[in-house]
Amino acid sequence: MSHPLVVMKFGGSSVANADRIRRVARRVAAARSDGADLVVVVSAMGDTTDELLSLAAAITEEPDARELDMLLATGEQQSSTLMAMALHALGVAAIALTGAQAGIVTDGTYGKARIAGIDPVRIRAELADGKVVIVAGFQGQSAKALELMETTTLGRGGSDTTAVALAAALRADRCQIYTDVKGICTADPRVVPDARQLAVVGYEEMLELAHQGAQVMQVRAVELGWVNDVVIEVLSSFEDAPGTLIREDPLVEQRNKVRGIAHDRNVAKITLVEVPDRPGVAYAVFSPLADAGISVDMIVQNVGHGARTDMSFTLPRVDLEKAKRVLEPIVRELGFREMTTDASIAKVSIVGAGLHNAPGYAARMFGALADAGVNIEMISTSEVRITCTIAEQDLEAAARALHAAFQLATPDPLDEAAARGR
Amino acid sequence: MSHPLVVMKFGGSSVANADRIRRVARRVAAARSDGADLVVVVSAMGDTTDELLSLAAAITEEPDARELDMLLATGEQQSSTLMAMALHALGVAAIALTGAQAGIVTDGTYGKARIAGIDPVRIRAELADGKVVIVAGFQGQSAKALELMETTTLGRGGSDTTAVALAAALRADRCQIYTDVKGICTADPRVVPDARQLAVVGYEEMLELAHQGAQVMQVRAVELGWVNDVVIEVLSSFEDAPGTLIREDPLVEQRNKVRGIAHDRNVAKITLVEVPDRPGVAYAVFSPLADAGISVDMIVQNVGHGARTDMSFTLPRVDLEKAKRVLEPIVRELGFREMTTDASIAKVSIVGAGLHNAPGYAARMFGALADAGVNIEMISTSEVRITCTIAEQDLEAAARALHAAFQLATPDPLDEAAARGR
Repeated sequence: MSHPLVVMKFGGSSVANADRIRRVARRVAAARSDGADLVVVVSAMGDTTDELLSLAAAITEEPDARELDMLLATGEQQSSTLMAMALHALGVAAIALTGAQAGIVTDGTYGKARIAGIDPVRIRAELADGKVVIVAGFQGQSAKALELMETTTLGRGGSDTTAVALAAALRADRCQIYTDVKGICTADPRVVPDARQLAVVGYEEMLELAHQGAQVMQVRAVELGWVNDVVIEVLSSFEDAPGTLIREDPLVEQRNKVRGIAHDRNVAKITLVEVPDRPGVAYAVFSPLADAGISVDMIVQNVGHGARTDMSFTLPRVDLEKAKRVLEPIVRELGFREMTTDASIAKVSIVGAGLHNAPGYAARMFGALADAGVNIEMISTSEVRITCTIAEQDLEAAARALHAAFQLATPDPLDEAAARGR
Repeated sequence: MSHPLVVMKFGGSSVANADRIRRVARRVAAARSDGADLVVVVSAMGDTTDELLSLAAAITEEPDARELDMLLATGEQQSSTLMAMALHALGVAAIALTGAQAGIVTDGTYGKARIAGIDPVRIRAELADGKVVIVAGFQGQSAKALELMETTTLGRGGSDTTAVALAAALRADRCQIYTDVKGICTADPRVVPDARQLAVVGYEEMLELAHQGAQVMQVRAVELGWVNDVVIEVLSSFEDAPGTLIREDPLVEQRNKVRGIAHDRNVAKITLVEVPDRPGVAYAVFSPLADAGISVDMIVQNVGHGARTDMSFTLPRVDLEKAKRVLEPIVRELGFREMTTDASIAKVSIVGAGLHNAPGYAARMFGALADAGVNIEMISTSEVRITCTIAEQDLEAAARALHAAFQLATPDPLDEAAARGR
């Protein structure tokens, strides 16, 4: 087949009401008239998912996970059929498919199912029949046999995952994620006014940007794109402008620099003072937190002086109270001197695929923060990122100082070169 | 299995919000603790179906029938999962199944699919597992193979049909239709204040009562119950009181009397004046009306005087304008003198399984109406019914006069005897 195959994904705000659905349909119709074969993945309309969750909460405090998935999946089934109708009204042949009809098979983990495989036989047949195929995002079925079939959902933002997984299974030429931002920027424009849109970003860089608080795309969907080598384009559903390509970046070695600044305000810190310095203490602390579903991020243990040491770690701010409840008996039992908490900290990171083999970036980062009068509390690094914990009140100054220090407002000629493949 | 198996169906007003769903759940839990195996069929919450139709109408004037069915079916999927959650909250094991999961296979007529068969293997397995099985009403799937599976809906009131079909397939001991009335009455209590609830009514009588405007249960569901010999009980979802049994009535021959008064205000009349009295005229009139989807009810043709005659017929009032548009060119073409219409008529009927072999009922009916000063315009009869068309303004007087004339306010000892099988 000589037509390009494009997967387009539209989020809840893009299909929040009948007018917006018709606007998206016009955009899809235009892409169709350009000759592309199209698979369109949609999220539920606007706040539908939250409304359904409220309804369940009004019935019971602990809704059964299977029933909740079946309930939530109806949101995307509704928006997908309405999108098909809107395309019909424009004279475009189209058909809506549930996750099950689209052949999306998952494991049986309700609420955060993993895609086990995609059997796109129905999608291919509908495409061959000249139709735009609308797929209800966020959902799948847990078995191929009808008698055992259960509806599953992929977790928050699961429609991104649906889109990337379909693009991989169909070997699509492009996977477009339409969102309410224009693309991925060197920093959050609300914090750093001269932040610049990136034409291209590597998968690993995007993962770090997403992890560190740039909430444009789901981490899982980026990982899935990386593993399957799916070229993802993040772009605005409200403007007709090029977005940011997420792809394997062949210019990493030449570029070797900071690509963006990420930040995260949803951070709290717990410090355990005068921890007994003996084996097993860390396990005693972190194992019950993991059991309670709390993910701990940065962990710092000071050099011991004598038999006791201090231990600090960060966690999502929303989990702070729960973590305190979990840890209080342990603190008494293990004989810490005290537990202190800080809910007004933030994280700021520099991200770039070349950072790990280019010493000197850390020093430049710390220097820029010092010049801006920002005190660093904790530091952690990964292959493509250096993160500092700072006081939340210093966050804007820190992000702007780093954006300036690494000259991110200046367009990068290599960026343009890498984007030429679009 | 020694437990009785009961199918319970709750309509949209019974599950209109979280409070009502929890109330229905308490009722189901009570029935469960009495030891019955239960299959519970639910309609969509309150006005959900109408809201989804409005949403579709805001997208396009002519929504595709396939997409519309997929959209509307989500309403019952939502209410069924919420009902399962409400039962869980009461400690009752329960599981919600879509029409497809419940094994309800239909033909492919979207919007008014007929049930082709039910494969209740999943329902039986869940019942054997000790669960109350909640089934999303109003829907099915058009094929057994997953690759070809399409969601279909059974038309307005289709949840009644779902319940009766499941009761037949499962050989249930009872099919209970919970509604916002207490049962089937000798007349509409809003029109005839001393109307009395019937303990038992035959299928054929119920069909005539339903056809003639007693909008308690869908006609199709009663027919299905009749064919499959399913004992149906109509009862209130808001009160704990015995309802009306719809069943084969062994006492018809002994009873041989009027069981109820039905009425219908949704009636209009068209009269074609001085119709050419030759073969083919009726076909020329009624064939285009049928093509336009308009059902004509009573047809009366006066005895011809010379070569011309008058023809009158009734139709649903909502179809009157459409019928006029269809007929105007035909009236001109065939050379009628004129077409007159009357939108302020009504129908009143006496219904009873013994009427056809008991002459004298018609005379008593006409006499009672004459005594009440009500003029009869048209008359039609069936095996179990005599219907008169009258001026709408006379409807209440006519219904009360007939109710009194046939002594319907007086309890019938045979009624109680027939109900003893409950």
